[in-house]
Amino acid sequence: MAEQKATNVTWHEHRVGNEERNQLNGHKGAVIWFTGLSACGKSTVANTVDHLLHQKGVHTYVLDGDNVRMGLNKNLGFSAEDRAENIRRIGEVASLFNNASILTLTAFISPYKEDRDNVRKLLGDGEFIEVYVNASLETCEARDPKGLYKKARAGEIKGFTGIDDPYEAPEKAELVLDADNKSIDDLAEEVVAYLEAKGYLKS
Amino acid sequence: MAEQKATNVTWHEHRVGNEERNQLNGHKGAVIWFTGLSACGKSTVANTVDHLLHQKGVHTYVLDGDNVRMGLNKNLGFSAEDRAENIRRIGEVASLFNNASILTLTAFISPYKEDRDNVRKLLGDGEFIEVYVNASLETCEARDPKGLYKKARAGEIKGFTGIDDPYEAPEKAELVLDADNKSIDDLAEEVVAYLEAKGYLKS
Repeated sequence: MAEQKATNVTWHEHRVGNEERNQLNGHKGAVIWFTGLSACGKSTVANTVDHLLHQKGVHTYVLDGDNVRMGLNKNLGFSAEDRAENIRRIGEVASLFNNASILTLTAFISPYKEDRDNVRKLLGDGEFIEVYVNASLETCEARDPKGLYKKARAGEIKGFTGIDDPYEAPEKAELVLDADNKSIDDLAEEVVAYLEAKGYLKS
Repeated sequence: MAEQKATNVTWHEHRVGNEERNQLNGHKGAVIWFTGLSACGKSTVANTVDHLLHQKGVHTYVLDGDNVRMGLNKNLGFSAEDRAENIRRIGEVASLFNNASILTLTAFISPYKEDRDNVRKLLGDGEFIEVYVNASLETCEARDPKGLYKKARAGEIKGFTGIDDPYEAPEKAELVLDADNKSIDDLAEEVVAYLEAKGYLKS
Protein backbone atom coordinates (compact mmCIF):
# COMPACT_ATOMS: atom_id res chain seq x y z
CA MET A 1 0.00 0.00 0.00
CA ALA A 2 1.21 3.51 -0.72
CA GLU A 3 2.44 5.42 2.28
CA GLN A 4 0.52 8.52 3.37
CA LYS A 5 2.98 11.34 2.64
CA ALA A 6 0.97 14.50 3.07
CA THR A 7 0.40 15.55 6.65
CA ASN A 8 -1.84 18.41 7.82
CA VAL A 9 -4.77 17.09 5.81
CA THR A 10 -8.24 16.44 7.17
CA TRP A 11 -11.25 14.71 5.68
CA HIS A 12 -13.98 17.12 4.53
CA GLU A 13 -17.54 15.91 4.80
CA HIS A 14 -19.33 16.86 1.60
CA ARG A 15 -22.55 18.79 1.77
CA VAL A 16 -24.17 16.59 -0.86
CA GLY A 17 -23.78 13.06 0.44
CA ASN A 18 -23.91 9.64 -1.09
CA GLU A 19 -27.63 9.18 -0.33
CA GLU A 20 -28.56 12.36 -2.20
CA ARG A 21 -26.57 11.32 -5.27
CA ASN A 22 -28.15 7.84 -5.18
CA GLN A 23 -31.59 9.43 -5.13
CA LEU A 24 -30.84 11.58 -8.15
CA ASN A 25 -29.48 8.62 -10.16
CA GLY A 26 -32.09 6.11 -9.00
CA HIS A 27 -29.45 3.57 -7.95
CA LYS A 28 -26.32 3.23 -5.89
CA GLY A 29 -22.79 3.10 -7.17
CA ALA A 30 -20.65 -0.02 -7.42
CA VAL A 31 -17.42 -1.10 -9.07
CA ILE A 32 -17.64 -3.99 -11.51
CA TRP A 33 -14.05 -5.10 -11.77
CA PHE A 34 -13.27 -7.21 -14.85
CA THR A 35 -9.98 -9.12 -14.63
CA GLY A 36 -8.32 -11.60 -16.97
CA LEU A 37 -5.52 -12.17 -19.46
CA SER A 38 -4.79 -9.80 -22.32
CA ALA A 39 -7.27 -10.48 -25.17
CA CYS A 40 -9.66 -12.47 -22.94
CA GLY A 41 -12.46 -10.04 -23.82
CA LYS A 42 -12.57 -7.87 -20.67
CA SER A 43 -12.90 -4.55 -22.43
CA THR A 44 -15.42 -5.78 -25.01
CA VAL A 45 -17.63 -7.41 -22.37
CA ALA A 46 -17.38 -4.32 -20.14
CA ASN A 47 -18.37 -2.01 -22.99
CA THR A 48 -21.27 -4.29 -23.95
CA VAL A 49 -22.52 -4.33 -20.34
CA ASP A 50 -22.12 -0.54 -20.30
CA HIS A 51 -24.28 -0.28 -23.42
CA LEU A 52 -26.99 -2.55 -21.97
CA LEU A 53 -27.05 -0.69 -18.65
CA HIS A 54 -27.11 2.72 -20.33
CA GLN A 55 -30.17 1.62 -22.34
CA LYS A 56 -31.85 0.88 -18.99
CA GLY A 57 -31.13 4.43 -17.79
CA VAL A 58 -28.36 3.38 -15.41
CA HIS A 59 -25.56 5.91 -14.83
CA THR A 60 -22.36 4.13 -15.81
CA TYR A 61 -18.77 4.74 -16.78
CA VAL A 62 -15.97 2.56 -18.14
CA LEU A 63 -12.38 2.83 -17.00
CA ASP A 64 -10.15 0.68 -19.13
CA GLY A 65 -6.50 -0.19 -19.19
CA ASP A 66 -5.19 1.34 -22.34
CA ASN A 67 -7.18 4.53 -21.95
CA VAL A 68 -6.12 5.14 -18.36
CA ARG A 69 -2.52 4.38 -19.29
CA MET A 70 -2.64 7.24 -21.80
CA GLY A 71 -3.87 9.69 -19.19
CA LEU A 72 -3.80 9.31 -15.42
CA ASN A 73 -1.21 6.53 -15.46
CA LYS A 74 0.90 7.60 -18.42
CA ASN A 75 3.91 7.88 -16.10
CA LEU A 76 3.75 4.17 -15.17
CA GLY A 77 5.35 1.22 -16.94
CA PHE A 78 4.93 -2.52 -16.45
CA SER A 79 7.31 -3.34 -13.59
CA ALA A 80 5.68 -5.12 -10.63
CA GLU A 81 5.85 -1.85 -8.68
CA ASP A 82 4.31 0.19 -11.50
CA ARG A 83 1.59 -2.42 -12.05
CA ALA A 84 0.69 -2.21 -8.36
CA GLU A 85 0.58 1.61 -8.48
CA ASN A 86 -1.46 1.42 -11.71
CA ILE A 87 -4.13 -0.68 -10.01
CA ARG A 88 -3.97 1.35 -6.79
CA ARG A 89 -4.71 4.60 -8.66
CA ILE A 90 -7.47 2.98 -10.72
CA GLY A 91 -9.00 1.60 -7.53
CA GLU A 92 -9.01 5.08 -5.99
CA VAL A 93 -10.59 6.61 -9.09
CA ALA A 94 -13.18 3.83 -9.26
CA SER A 95 -13.92 4.52 -5.60
CA LEU A 96 -14.55 8.21 -6.39
CA PHE A 97 -16.91 7.25 -9.24
CA ASN A 98 -18.64 4.77 -6.94
CA ASN A 99 -19.03 7.57 -4.40
CA ALA A 100 -20.63 9.66 -7.15
CA SER A 101 -23.27 6.88 -7.52
CA ILE A 102 -21.95 5.65 -10.84
CA LEU A 103 -21.95 1.96 -11.77
CA THR A 104 -18.30 1.86 -12.74
CA LEU A 105 -16.94 -0.82 -15.05
CA THR A 106 -13.19 -1.36 -15.01
CA ALA A 107 -11.34 -3.54 -17.50
CA PHE A 108 -7.73 -4.16 -16.51
CA ILE A 109 -5.63 -7.31 -16.61
CA SER A 110 -4.93 -6.61 -12.89
CA PRO A 111 -2.90 -9.81 -12.62
CA TYR A 112 -1.97 -9.69 -8.93
CA LYS A 113 -4.44 -10.88 -6.30
CA GLU A 114 -3.06 -8.53 -3.64
CA ASP A 115 -3.66 -5.45 -5.79
CA ARG A 116 -7.25 -6.46 -6.52
CA ASP A 117 -7.87 -7.29 -2.87
CA ASN A 118 -6.61 -3.84 -1.88
CA VAL A 119 -9.26 -2.28 -4.12
CA ARG A 120 -11.89 -4.54 -2.58
CA LYS A 121 -10.85 -3.34 0.89
CA LEU A 122 -11.08 0.28 -0.23
CA LEU A 123 -14.75 -0.14 -1.09
CA GLY A 124 -17.72 -0.96 1.12
CA ASP A 125 -19.52 -4.30 1.40
CA GLY A 126 -21.08 -5.27 -1.92
CA GLU A 127 -19.49 -2.33 -3.72
CA PHE A 128 -16.74 -4.41 -5.36
CA ILE A 129 -17.91 -7.01 -7.86
CA GLU A 130 -14.99 -9.04 -9.16
CA VAL A 131 -15.71 -10.54 -12.57
CA TYR A 132 -13.15 -13.06 -13.76
CA VAL A 133 -13.19 -13.22 -17.55
CA ASN A 134 -11.80 -16.72 -17.73
CA ALA A 135 -10.24 -17.53 -21.11
CA SER A 136 -7.35 -19.95 -21.43
CA LEU A 137 -3.94 -18.72 -22.51
CA GLU A 138 -4.44 -20.78 -25.69
CA THR A 139 -7.64 -18.90 -26.55
CA CYS A 140 -6.11 -15.48 -25.86
CA GLU A 141 -2.93 -16.29 -27.75
CA ALA A 142 -4.93 -17.56 -30.72
CA ARG A 143 -6.91 -14.28 -30.81
CA ASP A 144 -3.98 -11.91 -30.18
CA PRO A 145 -5.67 -8.93 -31.93
CA LYS A 146 -2.72 -6.59 -31.32
CA GLY A 147 0.01 -9.16 -31.91
CA LEU A 148 1.24 -8.73 -28.33
CA TYR A 149 1.57 -12.42 -27.50
CA LYS A 150 3.64 -12.89 -30.64
CA LYS A 151 5.95 -10.07 -29.55
CA ALA A 152 6.15 -11.46 -26.03
CA ARG A 153 7.03 -14.94 -27.32
CA ALA A 154 9.72 -13.34 -29.49
CA GLY A 155 11.11 -11.58 -26.40
CA GLU A 156 10.23 -8.12 -27.80
CA ILE A 157 7.95 -7.40 -24.83
CA LYS A 158 9.24 -8.34 -21.39
CA GLY A 159 7.10 -9.09 -18.35
CA PHE A 160 4.01 -9.97 -20.35
CA THR A 161 1.19 -11.46 -18.28
CA GLY A 162 0.74 -15.19 -18.94
CA ILE A 163 4.09 -15.48 -20.74
CA ASP A 164 6.86 -14.29 -18.42
CA ASP A 165 4.77 -12.58 -15.72
CA PRO A 166 2.16 -14.40 -13.62
CA TYR A 167 -1.62 -14.06 -13.73
CA GLU A 168 -3.11 -14.86 -10.35
CA ALA A 169 -6.69 -15.98 -11.00
CA PRO A 170 -9.33 -14.83 -8.50
CA GLU A 171 -10.33 -17.44 -5.93
CA LYS A 172 -13.56 -15.82 -4.80
CA ALA A 173 -14.77 -13.75 -7.72
CA GLU A 174 -18.42 -12.72 -7.57
CA LEU A 175 -18.76 -13.93 -11.16
CA VAL A 176 -16.66 -16.20 -13.38
CA LEU A 177 -17.33 -15.88 -17.09
CA ASP A 178 -16.55 -18.76 -19.44
CA ALA A 179 -14.91 -16.78 -22.21
CA ASP A 180 -13.57 -19.88 -23.95
CA ASN A 181 -17.03 -21.13 -24.85
CA LYS A 182 -19.54 -18.29 -24.72
CA SER A 183 -20.13 -15.23 -26.90
CA ILE A 184 -19.48 -11.68 -25.75
CA ASP A 185 -23.21 -10.93 -25.80
CA ASP A 186 -24.00 -13.97 -23.64
CA LEU A 187 -21.29 -13.02 -21.14
CA ALA A 188 -22.56 -9.43 -20.98
CA GLU A 189 -26.12 -10.67 -20.38
CA GLU A 190 -24.81 -12.82 -17.51
CA VAL A 191 -23.31 -9.76 -15.87
CA VAL A 192 -26.50 -7.72 -16.29
CA ALA A 193 -28.58 -10.61 -14.91
CA TYR A 194 -26.31 -10.75 -11.86
CA LEU A 195 -26.64 -7.01 -11.25
CA GLU A 196 -30.41 -7.20 -11.60
CA ALA A 197 -30.72 -10.21 -9.29
CA LYS A 198 -28.59 -8.50 -6.63
CA GLY A 199 -30.58 -5.26 -6.76
CA TYR A 200 -27.85 -3.02 -8.17
CA LEU A 201 -30.06 -1.47 -10.84
CA LYS A 202 -32.62 0.15 -8.56
CA SER A 203 -32.42 2.37 -5.52
CA MET B 1 4.10 17.00 -18.50
CA ALA B 2 4.50 13.36 -17.57
CA GLU B 3 6.23 11.22 -20.13
CA GLN B 4 4.22 8.43 -21.79
CA LYS B 5 5.90 5.30 -20.46
CA ALA B 6 3.62 2.48 -21.50
CA THR B 7 3.96 1.43 -25.11
CA ASN B 8 1.73 -1.05 -26.96
CA VAL B 9 -1.42 0.78 -25.85
CA THR B 10 -4.21 1.92 -28.13
CA TRP B 11 -7.19 4.15 -27.53
CA HIS B 12 -10.47 2.24 -27.26
CA GLU B 13 -13.57 3.97 -28.52
CA HIS B 14 -16.31 3.40 -25.98
CA ARG B 15 -19.63 2.00 -27.13
CA VAL B 16 -21.54 4.49 -25.03
CA GLY B 17 -20.27 7.88 -26.07
CA ASN B 18 -20.28 11.32 -24.57
CA GLU B 19 -23.48 12.33 -26.36
CA GLU B 20 -25.41 9.38 -24.91
CA ARG B 21 -24.26 10.18 -21.38
CA ASN B 22 -25.18 13.85 -21.84
CA GLN B 23 -28.68 12.83 -22.91
CA LEU B 24 -29.18 10.65 -19.85
CA ASN B 25 -28.02 13.41 -17.47
CA GLY B 26 -29.74 16.28 -19.27
CA HIS B 27 -26.55 18.35 -19.44
CA LYS B 28 -22.94 18.14 -20.52
CA GLY B 29 -19.95 17.73 -18.27
CA ALA B 30 -17.50 20.48 -17.34
CA VAL B 31 -14.76 21.07 -14.80
CA ILE B 32 -15.24 24.02 -12.47
CA TRP B 33 -11.74 24.55 -11.15
CA PHE B 34 -11.56 26.59 -7.93
CA THR B 35 -8.09 27.93 -7.14
CA GLY B 36 -6.79 30.18 -4.38
CA LEU B 37 -4.78 30.35 -1.17
CA SER B 38 -5.29 27.97 1.73
CA ALA B 39 -8.35 29.08 3.76
CA CYS B 40 -9.64 31.38 0.98
CA GLY B 41 -12.93 29.45 0.95
CA LYS B 42 -12.47 27.23 -2.15
CA SER B 43 -13.82 24.06 -0.62
CA THR B 44 -16.74 25.74 1.13
CA VAL B 45 -17.81 27.64 -1.98
CA ALA B 46 -17.42 24.50 -4.14
CA ASN B 47 -19.55 22.46 -1.73
CA THR B 48 -22.20 25.18 -1.60
CA VAL B 49 -22.32 25.34 -5.41
CA ASP B 50 -22.54 21.53 -5.43
CA HIS B 51 -25.53 21.69 -3.07
CA LEU B 52 -27.31 24.32 -5.19
CA LEU B 53 -26.69 22.42 -8.43
CA HIS B 54 -27.78 19.10 -6.92
CA GLN B 55 -31.06 20.74 -5.86
CA LYS B 56 -31.57 21.65 -9.52
CA GLY B 57 -31.10 17.99 -10.54
CA VAL B 58 -27.65 18.54 -12.01
CA HIS B 59 -25.23 15.59 -11.79
CA THR B 60 -22.22 16.85 -9.91
CA TYR B 61 -19.20 15.71 -7.95
CA VAL B 62 -16.62 17.44 -5.79
CA LEU B 63 -12.93 16.59 -5.87
CA ASP B 64 -11.10 18.42 -3.13
CA GLY B 65 -7.53 18.70 -2.03
CA ASP B 66 -7.42 17.10 1.36
CA ASN B 67 -9.69 14.22 0.36
CA VAL B 68 -7.77 13.35 -2.80
CA ARG B 69 -4.52 13.56 -0.88
CA MET B 70 -5.79 10.80 1.44
CA GLY B 71 -6.58 8.50 -1.47
CA LEU B 72 -5.38 8.78 -5.05
CA ASN B 73 -2.51 11.12 -4.19
CA LYS B 74 -1.54 9.81 -0.78
CA ASN B 75 1.93 9.01 -2.13
CA LEU B 76 2.62 12.67 -3.00
CA GLY B 77 4.09 15.38 -0.78
CA PHE B 78 4.41 19.12 -1.29
CA SER B 79 7.62 19.49 -3.31
CA ALA B 80 7.22 21.42 -6.57
CA GLU B 81 7.44 18.12 -8.47
CA ASP B 82 4.84 16.42 -6.27
CA ARG B 83 2.53 19.44 -6.46
CA ALA B 84 2.70 19.28 -10.25
CA GLU B 85 1.97 15.54 -10.26
CA ASN B 86 -0.86 16.12 -7.75
CA ILE B 87 -2.56 18.57 -10.09
CA ARG B 88 -1.80 16.47 -13.18
CA ARG B 89 -3.55 13.44 -11.68
CA ILE B 90 -6.49 15.51 -10.47
CA GLY B 91 -6.80 17.04 -13.93
CA GLU B 92 -6.91 13.57 -15.49
CA VAL B 93 -9.54 12.39 -13.00
CA ALA B 94 -11.61 15.54 -13.52
CA SER B 95 -11.37 14.89 -17.26
CA LEU B 96 -12.76 11.36 -16.77
CA PHE B 97 -15.65 12.76 -14.69
CA ASN B 98 -16.23 15.43 -17.34
CA ASN B 99 -16.31 12.67 -19.96
CA ALA B 100 -18.94 10.92 -17.82
CA SER B 101 -21.09 14.09 -18.15
CA ILE B 102 -20.62 15.16 -14.57
CA LEU B 103 -20.31 18.83 -13.60
CA THR B 104 -17.12 18.37 -11.62
CA LEU B 105 -16.09 20.86 -8.96
CA THR B 106 -12.45 20.80 -7.89
CA ALA B 107 -11.08 22.72 -4.92
CA PHE B 108 -7.29 22.73 -4.82
CA ILE B 109 -4.84 25.49 -4.05
CA SER B 110 -3.21 24.61 -7.42
CA PRO B 111 -0.72 27.46 -7.03
CA TYR B 112 1.20 27.11 -10.31
CA LYS B 113 -0.16 28.60 -13.50
CA GLU B 114 1.54 26.00 -15.71
CA ASP B 115 -0.13 23.09 -13.89
CA ARG B 116 -3.58 24.68 -14.20
CA ASP B 117 -2.99 25.52 -17.85
CA ASN B 118 -2.05 21.90 -18.51
CA VAL B 119 -5.45 20.82 -17.16
CA ARG B 120 -7.13 23.45 -19.34
CA LYS B 121 -5.34 22.00 -22.40
CA LEU B 122 -6.45 18.50 -21.48
CA LEU B 123 -10.09 19.53 -21.70
CA GLY B 124 -12.13 20.75 -24.64
CA ASP B 125 -13.22 24.32 -25.35
CA GLY B 126 -15.51 25.60 -22.62
CA GLU B 127 -14.98 22.50 -20.48
CA PHE B 128 -12.53 24.16 -18.08
CA ILE B 129 -13.95 26.96 -15.98
CA GLU B 130 -11.25 28.52 -13.83
CA VAL B 131 -12.68 30.22 -10.74
CA TYR B 132 -10.21 32.31 -8.80
CA VAL B 133 -11.31 32.57 -5.18
CA ASN B 134 -9.50 35.81 -4.51
CA ALA B 135 -8.85 36.44 -0.84
CA SER B 136 -5.85 38.38 0.38
CA LEU B 137 -3.14 36.65 2.36
CA GLU B 138 -4.18 38.83 5.31
CA THR B 139 -7.77 37.52 5.17
CA CYS B 140 -6.65 33.89 4.87
CA GLU B 141 -4.07 34.22 7.61
CA ALA B 142 -6.62 35.84 9.92
CA ARG B 143 -9.02 32.92 9.34
CA ASP B 144 -6.45 30.11 9.53
CA PRO B 145 -9.00 27.47 10.63
CA LYS B 146 -6.44 24.68 10.84
CA GLY B 147 -3.61 26.80 12.26
CA LEU B 148 -1.50 26.09 9.18
CA TYR B 149 -0.35 29.67 8.56
CA LYS B 150 0.77 29.86 12.18
CA LYS B 151 2.81 26.68 11.73
CA ALA B 152 4.24 27.96 8.44
CA ARG B 153 5.24 31.29 10.04
CA ALA B 154 6.90 29.34 12.83
CA GLY B 155 8.82 27.29 10.25
CA GLU B 156 7.06 24.07 11.25
CA ILE B 157 5.63 23.64 7.74
CA LYS B 158 7.99 24.27 4.83
CA GLY B 159 6.97 25.28 1.33
CA PHE B 160 3.60 26.70 2.38
CA THR B 161 1.78 28.57 -0.38
CA GLY B 162 1.74 32.33 0.21
CA ILE B 163 4.44 32.14 2.90
CA ASP B 164 7.53 30.46 1.44
CA ASP B 165 6.08 29.05 -1.77
CA PRO B 166 4.49 31.20 -4.49
CA TYR B 167 0.85 31.46 -5.48
CA GLU B 168 0.54 32.42 -9.14
CA ALA B 169 -2.83 34.11 -9.51
CA PRO B 170 -4.79 33.33 -12.69
CA GLU B 171 -4.58 36.00 -15.37
CA LYS B 172 -7.56 34.89 -17.42
CA ALA B 173 -9.88 33.10 -15.03
CA GLU B 174 -13.44 32.67 -16.26
CA LEU B 175 -14.61 34.00 -12.89
CA VAL B 176 -12.92 35.97 -10.10
CA LEU B 177 -14.67 35.84 -6.75
CA ASP B 178 -14.16 38.61 -4.21
CA ALA B 179 -13.71 36.45 -1.13
CA ASP B 180 -12.46 39.36 0.99
CA ASN B 181 -15.80 41.15 0.87
CA LYS B 182 -18.58 38.74 -0.02
CA SER B 183 -20.25 35.87 1.82
CA ILE B 184 -19.86 32.22 0.83
CA ASP B 185 -23.52 32.09 -0.23
CA ASP B 186 -23.16 35.15 -2.44
CA LEU B 187 -20.04 33.73 -4.08
CA ALA B 188 -21.75 30.39 -4.68
CA GLU B 189 -24.74 32.17 -6.26
CA GLU B 190 -22.34 34.01 -8.58
CA VAL B 191 -20.93 30.71 -9.80
CA VAL B 192 -24.39 29.22 -10.36
CA ALA B 193 -25.50 32.36 -12.21
CA TYR B 194 -22.44 32.07 -14.48
CA LEU B 195 -23.17 28.41 -15.24
CA GLU B 196 -26.80 29.21 -16.00
CA ALA B 197 -25.94 32.17 -18.22
CA LYS B 198 -23.43 30.10 -20.19
CA GLY B 199 -25.86 27.21 -20.71
CA TYR B 200 -24.05 24.60 -18.63
CA LEU B 201 -27.16 23.49 -16.75
CA LYS B 202 -29.16 22.27 -19.71
CA SER B 203 -28.45 19.93 -22.61
